[in-house]
Parts: sequence; C-alpha cells; structure tokens
Amino acid sequence: MMAEFINGIAASNGVAIAKAYKLVDPDLSFEQVNVENVQAEEGRLEAAFSVAKTELEQIRDKAMQNMGTDEAEVFTAHIMVLEDPELIGGIKNAIETEKLNAEAALKNVTDMYIGMFEGMADDNPYMAERAADIRDVTKRVMAHLLGKELPNPALIQEEVVIVAKDMTPSDTAQLDRKYVKGFVTDLGGRTAHAAIMARTLEIPAIVGAVDATDKISAGDTLILNGLEGVTTINPSNEEIKVAQAKADKYAEQKSEWAKLKNEPSQSADGRKLIVGSNIGTPKDLAGVLASGSEGIGLYRTEFLYMDSAELPTEDDQFEAYKSVLEGMNGKPVTVRTMDIGGDKYLPYLPLPEEENPFMGYRAIRISLDRTDIFRTQLRALLRASVYGDLWIMFPMIATINEFRAAKKIFEEERTNLKQAGVAISDDIKLGIMIEIPAAAMLADRFAQEVDFFSIGTNDLIAYTMAADRGNEHVSYLYQPYNPSILRLIKQVIDAAHQYGKFVAMCGEMAGDQIAAPLLLGMGLDEFSMSSTSVLQTRALLRALDSKDMAKLAEKALNMDTNEEVESLVAASVKI
Amino acid sequence: MMAEFINGIAASNGVAIAKAYKLVDPDLSFEQVNVENVQAEEGRLEAAFSVAKTELEQIRDKAMQNMGTDEAEVFTAHIMVLEDPELIGGIKNAIETEKLNAEAALKNVTDMYIGMFEGMADDNPYMAERAADIRDVTKRVMAHLLGKELPNPALIQEEVVIVAKDMTPSDTAQLDRKYVKGFVTDLGGRTAHAAIMARTLEIPAIVGAVDATDKISAGDTLILNGLEGVTTINPSNEEIKVAQAKADKYAEQKSEWAKLKNEPSQSADGRKLIVGSNIGTPKDLAGVLASGSEGIGLYRTEFLYMDSAELPTEDDQFEAYKSVLEGMNGKPVTVRTMDIGGDKYLPYLPLPEEENPFMGYRAIRISLDRTDIFRTQLRALLRASVYGDLWIMFPMIATINEFRAAKKIFEEERTNLKQAGVAISDDIKLGIMIEIPAAAMLADRFAQEVDFFSIGTNDLIAYTMAADRGNEHVSYLYQPYNPSILRLIKQVIDAAHQYGKFVAMCGEMAGDQIAAPLLLGMGLDEFSMSSTSVLQTRALLRALDSKDMAKLAEKALNMDTNEEVESLVAASVKI
Repeated sequence: MMAEFINGIAASNGVAIAKAYKLVDPDLSFEQVNVENVQAEEGRLEAAFSVAKTELEQIRDKAMQNMGTDEAEVFTAHIMVLEDPELIGGIKNAIETEKLNAEAALKNVTDMYIGMFEGMADDNPYMAERAADIRDVTKRVMAHLLGKELPNPALIQEEVVIVAKDMTPSDTAQLDRKYVKGFVTDLGGRTAHAAIMARTLEIPAIVGAVDATDKISAGDTLILNGLEGVTTINPSNEEIKVAQAKADKYAEQKSEWAKLKNEPSQSADGRKLIVGSNIGTPKDLAGVLASGSEGIGLYRTEFLYMDSAELPTEDDQFEAYKSVLEGMNGKPVTVRTMDIGGDKYLPYLPLPEEENPFMGYRAIRISLDRTDIFRTQLRALLRASVYGDLWIMFPMIATINEFRAAKKIFEEERTNLKQAGVAISDDIKLGIMIEIPAAAMLADRFAQEVDFFSIGTNDLIAYTMAADRGNEHVSYLYQPYNPSILRLIKQVIDAAHQYGKFVAMCGEMAGDQIAAPLLLGMGLDEFSMSSTSVLQTRALLRALDSKDMAKLAEKALNMDTNEEVESLVAASVKI
Repeated sequence: MMAEFINGIAASNGVAIAKAYKLVDPDLSFEQVNVENVQAEEGRLEAAFSVAKTELEQIRDKAMQNMGTDEAEVFTAHIMVLEDPELIGGIKNAIETEKLNAEAALKNVTDMYIGMFEGMADDNPYMAERAADIRDVTKRVMAHLLGKELPNPALIQEEVVIVAKDMTPSDTAQLDRKYVKGFVTDLGGRTAHAAIMARTLEIPAIVGAVDATDKISAGDTLILNGLEGVTTINPSNEEIKVAQAKADKYAEQKSEWAKLKNEPSQSADGRKLIVGSNIGTPKDLAGVLASGSEGIGLYRTEFLYMDSAELPTEDDQFEAYKSVLEGMNGKPVTVRTMDIGGDKYLPYLPLPEEENPFMGYRAIRISLDRTDIFRTQLRALLRASVYGDLWIMFPMIATINEFRAAKKIFEEERTNLKQAGVAISDDIKLGIMIEIPAAAMLADRFAQEVDFFSIGTNDLIAYTMAADRGNEHVSYLYQPYNPSILRLIKQVIDAAHQYGKFVAMCGEMAGDQIAAPLLLGMGLDEFSMSSTSVLQTRALLRALDSKDMAKLAEKALNMDTNEEVESLVAASVKI
C-alpha cells in the first residue's frame, strides 16, 4: 500500500508520528416513533443522562488538571444542565403524554429551550451561552441513546494526532499535551484559533488541509510534518524513519534555542534588538519569563474586560497592571488600551449593530466616545506606572487628531492624580499602534508627536488588502510578504527613525521566519510575538547580518508579488 | 421673534426659500378594544381601504409623470396589496370572530403576513420586498382609520422645502421638482442616498442637520442654504433678502457654467483635462450629453445585474454596452466589470454570509471565481467594442496576480471571438480601479502592466481609514482631504505618469470643489463625476493655474489633518 499525502498550511512547528484520533461528530439522526412501554423509554433516558454525567465529570477533572479552573467551568455548566430536574421532567412528560421515543422527546424539549434562550440572546448574551450549553449536552445524551460514540478528547489515553474539521476553543481546552502530539484540520489559516493554540502548546499543527477528515480514518498512522505542512497517511517504515530524523533534528534545534534564554537578541553584526512577548493576562507571565523575552511588546488589556461580568474597576485594573510590571522586573511593558469592537464584544457594553464591524466603532473610537471607561483605564495605568517601565499605546489610531485627543485625556488624568498626591513615574512612554493604512501613510507626521510606534500587522494587512482575515473566501489575500505591505512597513520604520523614535511590531508577522529577516533588514527595533516563538526568532536574528538583510529587503520592496518575495527569502536565508 | 439657525452638511448646492413640509410619520398607536357593532367596524375598514387606494393611484400617476414607469411600479404593487381579497377577508374575519376593532384586526392580520414573508426572506429576497409592501400599505390604512394624515410628498402642490429624518429611495421617487425646492434631513452624510439624489435633481440639500425635524414645524418659512450647510427657520425680511441675493447669484453662476458646455476642460495655463460622467444605465446618457461631458469615466454595469430577475444574457449586455458606446459618438467610455457584493447583492446569486462584507467576497474576487459570469460579460464587451472607444476596468484589484488572471481570461475570450470571425476593436484599453490601499502602494508595478488607472475614492478612503462610510458612528473618518489620502493619490498619479499611463478618478472626490484644485495640482488626467457637476467643475478647472495648484498640493501633502487642508484650499482658491 502506497502512503498518501495531504497538503495544508504549516501552522505550528514540529514533527509528530502517531495514530489518528478523529474529532468528528457521529451521525446522530434518528426516527421518531411512538412507544407503548413508557417506563422502558424513561429508563433508557435516565441511563443516557447518567452516563453522560459521569463522562462530563471525568472531562471536567481532566480539563481542570490540564488547563486550570477557568477552562473547566464550561463543563460544570454542562453538568448543571444534566442535573436540572425541570429538563429531565419535561422530557419524561413528553414521553408519557405524547408516547414519544426518548430520542424524539429529548429533541423536542431541548429544541424548545434552545429556541427560548436564543430568542433572548439579543438582549442578554449570556442566554446564547446557555443555549449552547443545552445544545452540547443534548448531543452527548443523544449519542448515548443511539449507542454512538462521541469523541472525548479529554479522555484520550494514548499518543495521537487529532484530525478535525476545525477546533473550537472548548475542543482545545480538553487536550492533554501528554497524549496529543499534534493536530491537522480541514479548515482555518495560520491565524485561526486552532493554529494559535497549537503554537501555545508547542505541538505541531497543520490547518487548511482540505480533505483531512475525509481521507484519514481513525487509527491510521500519521506523520504530521508541521514544518512543511504535509500529512502522510499510513507511511512506510522508511518514511517513518526519515520523519523521525526530522523530528529529532527539530528537537535538537529546540534545545539549541533554549540555550539562548539569557543571551541578548542581536544580529550577527551586533545590531541590538528586542525580542518581546505578547500577552493577554498576568497568568501569561510564566511563559514570558521562561522564554527569556526582553520585554512585553503587547499586553492586550481587553481580556480584563472580556473575562468580567461588568466593567473592571480601577483597582482591579491597577492590580493586574502592577503584577505584570512587577513581574517583568524593570523590563519594558507595552500596554495597549482597550481594543473592544470588531469581533470582540462585552455582554455589559452593548455596541451598535454594524454592517462591517471591523470598519466600525471599536478600540480608540470607543475610548474617545466613552471617556468614562477610558479615564478609568488610564488612571489605573498611571497608578501602576511606578512598578516598572510602562509604555502605553492606543489601538486603531487613524488620524493625528485622535492621538491628540487621547493624549489630552491622558495628560488631564496625570495632572489630576499628581495634584491628589499619587506617585506616578515620570518616564511613561506614549505611542500608537500602526494598524490602519492612513496612520502608516502619515507616519512621518505622527513620529513628531508620539514616543513610539507598534505595527499591528494582522489588521494592517487586512485593511491594506481590503480582506477580512477571518473570511475563508478571501483568505488568499492575507499576504504578509506582499511588497505593498512591506513598503508600508518600511515607510513607518524610516519615519520613526528620522525623528529618533522606536518602532516595534506586535503582529503575527514579527515571529514569522520569512518576514523576520526582511524586518531586520528594514530596521525594526522590536519583534514581539507569542512567548513560544521568542527563542527561535532570537536564534534566527543572531544568525543574520543586518546589512545583508537590508539588501535583501531592498530587492523584496521592488518585486511584484507575495510569492516572489517568499521564494526570495527562502532561497537567500537558511532558516 | 429671532430666526433660528441649524447647521448641517452642505450636500447639494443652491439656495431655496420656501415653507417647510415635514415628511415625518404621525403617531399611529391605538388601543385594542372589543366591538359590538361588527358591521360598523367593517364599514370603517372598507372606507379606509378605499381612500388609501384612491390616494395610491394618485401617487402612482404622479410618480409615473415625474420619474418614469419603473419608479412608479412600487405603487402598483401597493395597490395590488389593497386589492387582494384574502387580506381584507382575513381582517374582516378577525373583526367578526374576535370582535376586534378594525385597527387591532388590521395590525394582527398584517403582522402575521409580514412575519410569514420575512420568514421566507432568507431563501427568497423577493419575500422581503413583499413584506415591506404590506408594511407600507398597513401604515396608510391605519392612518386613515385613526384620522391621521400621512405625508404624501407626491401630492404636494405648492413650493416647499422637505424636512425629514432621512429620505429613502421611495421617498425621493415621489418628489416633483416643480414644487420641491430642496430638503434638509437629520441624518446622512455627503454620500448618502438623499444627498446624491439631490445633486441629480439639482436642488439644494443639507444632511446631518441633527435637530431639523425637532426644531422645524410644518409651515415654518425656511432658508435652505445648500452652499453653506445652514438652514434658517422663520427668517426676517432682511435675511430673506440676503438669501434671495445669494440664490440669484448662484442661478447666475449656473447660467455662466452652462455656456461652457462645448468648451474644452483645460486649466488656465492650458493643461488638457477630461471632465467625464459616471453613469449606471444607458438611460443616463441624456444627462451626459446635456452636460457636455468629454467621456464616461465610469459605467457601473452592476445595474444590468441588479435590475434583472436572472443573470443578464450576453446579448442583453451587448445591447446595453453598444447603445452607450454609440451614444457617446467616439468619446471614451470606461466600463467597470461587475461590482457585486459588499452592500450589493443579487437575488439569484446567493453570496456567503459574511461578518464584514466590505472586506469580503465581491467584485473581481467573484468574477475570478465565477468565471462563467465574467466571461459572458467580457464577450459582450468585446462584441460591443467596435461601436466606440471602449476602456474596460476591473474593480477591487488588490494584487498584481489578480490583474494578470483577469487579463488572461480577457485575452482568451478575445482570441476565441476573433477565431469565430467576430469583429473586435483592436484598441480596447484595459485598466484597474485603484480603490484598495495595496494597489495604490504598488502603483509603480501595476503601471507597467495596465493601460490606465481609475481611482475610486469612496472605497479607497474607507479602507485607508478603516471606516465604513455607511456607518454613522465612524462617519467623521470619511476624510477626503486627509494628507494620508492625498499622499496615496499622489503616488498613484506619479507612478502612472512615470510609465506614460493615464489616470482618472471616478469617486465622489473628483467633483468636490475643495479636492479638485489639489487633484489638478497633483496631475490628475480625468475627473469623472455625476453629470450635474460636470459644468461647475469645468468652470473651476478653467479658472485655475496647474502650476499654482501643484504648489498648493505640495503644501497640503505636508500637513497633519483633513481640517488644515480644507482651510488651506478654501483660503487659497476662490470657489
């Protein structure tokens, strides 16, 4: 038998060899019939509820062990649904009065609840979660009624490669790194949730491998080559040997990288650089410290707002900022003010319905409108500033007037706190994200007013290409190496340096192994990324000569397409 | 009594003095009661239906007279709703069996129909129109039941200025230019439907005058100054005299402009320019010819698709393109291939549900995917090419590979037709819209492959600012004079000229009296706009020295904000 190959997008590095575990829902269709023996039907129902509950308790314990209490909470909610006497009572009632089989009674009653909760979801987003919980639980009970097996990734007890259409956050929350050696999905791009999660877990992953769930059967042996984006189904012994050698080489590379933890990030010719981390919460500090990051280039404060049932208080925010600044022990920490809107919403802060939320009311646009929220955040930051080296940046700045308005509010709050006798650092840096083309085009004017820039490539690429990166129909336009993007970045860096200002990048692109050599060549000062990519990128930058890379970048800026640039770098830089 | 002033956005030039006509729906709330005298209630219902029908017939006749058969069709649909025996039968039945008053019976029954049609609207967009028809008719019948007067703009018989929250296409379809001297709306920006319609009708208009409907009462005397964006409520005689002088001066200017119909568009120092028209259908040719346009800079072919119940055939398209080319008698006609998606959809071509359709599957992205539709359009264009001077351009080009793919398909169809012996012009120009920042950034590379550029400023500004211009929460970011936008435009023009290529602009900005001097200074070759703005723009350009404007543009490119540039031009150019 010949091995078969599936091509996809390399989303997380490494090579895994293991059996396929298919995370695909079984067919749960059934026939509605009338039953005579009501008691027997109720017995089947109770048994299915009971098995489902035992299973969910196991899953919850696993999730708690692997991921922590917060991530396990969703399963507690599921168990509570199963324990709700009204729900099982309603289903039994449907069996008794309508003589329905348990499957049909289950479906009718839960559909009714789901419809009801979804009807309320517009006014209260929690209701949408409640509907999702019931849907999840119904699926599990239905599977047991039909004698089908639902995939339970949390209960995996042997080494596997997961094969799925796509992975949701609740899927990945259940994975045990000890057994899950990697995954391959039909859908998604390099910036999909599954891809980001794989890089966080440091396991290889391939996404956008269109036929993976069709072509791979449960139990097939797979080689998952996350370096090259190729999955091999049922490989020969020879192929396994070659793959094992690649896996070993990658492991060796990783241990080489680990030695650089306390080494400076500088190019081969001695140009000083900063390789920093992007974080979402103070909990991410452990990864930052483990990676030997030279700073935090992006602290996404929106999680403070999203993980809360109401607006976080000034004191809550102060504690979070303080713990990050103290944890970094004097290394620079760049905090981005609230970036809500777009695809991020808060249940307690209703935003307008918008045709194109990515081009709508979000980030600094909300902050400048809801100055009450903005001022609270700025006060918390000002108070925390004495605990470290604080840099503050505003997201989604399009015009100079927006920056001036934000800065004015910042200065007002600083003056107020000072007058009240609060201690405040006198060296807070104030900068902006460059993620809107208009700001990039006017970088030389902005550079005269800000302390620093941080280029947010995810959104910058999306707006410059007029393509939503979450939309699979235009995902081919997510082109980080397109010369149009490189030119915008180059002009931002040049403008900053013309006025002696510092330029960081905190988008996906900063840790990209094709982009990083070009960014070095263009003169970028700081590369900020997921902590798991820090050491690899430091190793890469230390091997490169910045003057050679400047010549390479010059060539790339005068090419026509993304593909030409990618080939140029791949051919010129040994990565 | 002191006159009161309301500021808004000047949306269409001119000055009008007339009584206010409020196009605002009356309160149609009612109490549900039980009735004894069923017959009397049915009588009230029949009377209301009958008056509504008479009224709608009058409106339809008026609309037919003012706007043509197509525009009157919506009212025919409304009359058919009133004549439907099932509808009135259902309402009478509700009166009889539930003893409801006519208002409640009307509402219950029509709500049921509306809900039913809307439920089907996802699969069949015509159902949404049907639901809207019933809603419109219900409003009219309800008003008569309650003895309230519904505004009937079609029946206006004296000179008025319309005051409305906003104006829908069906509102403007009813306006008789003889009596409607202008309008002022609470909502909207310069590119809103109401604003565009006012410029087409050549009546003054002010939009975004936030409190207009609150502050103005029906019958108030108004001065509507569409040149300055100010509405004066109940002015003094002195104020009326001043306004009348301004109105006269503007009328005089217009008659001066009219003299330029057969004069060339060239700057004061003799630089040759083209001032062209934007059109949607062959019907718009009359306006083009009346304006003395030197060409058609944008023929939006999507109306061929939108005004049809199925994909237009190759022959249908051929006839339309031929009639426009012939009508222009050898003057250049730039045809844009299908620009569907974004906010434009076709009932017979289902598009994917998208979070951000403006950054999604649209225009050339659809054409390159649905090459069957694209090839049909290109064949129709190729066949029509012998009837005039045809320029073809592709919308929403982001990458050079997209242009190459579109051009390849064009060449294939040209070869096929030639081999089949079809006559084809051998001087068809092939170009692209520059409306995506990525294309503007790479204009020097594109310029080596295309015959011409046409800058589409409406979308270019939206993507560059990351702001949907239809979204009122971010409408302040529609900044055509922002130096970031001007710099992008400048680099596009320079790149084209470096390779000897022609650059047009077909966005709103080309006919803007503040932008046009800057565009002249930056070297733009063609200004294409609504036919009604052609003569005014020609007059403006003829009065300007292109070298002086080049110096002015240079200053503008080095400013910080939209507002600074606007002030600079206003102070330097007497418009």
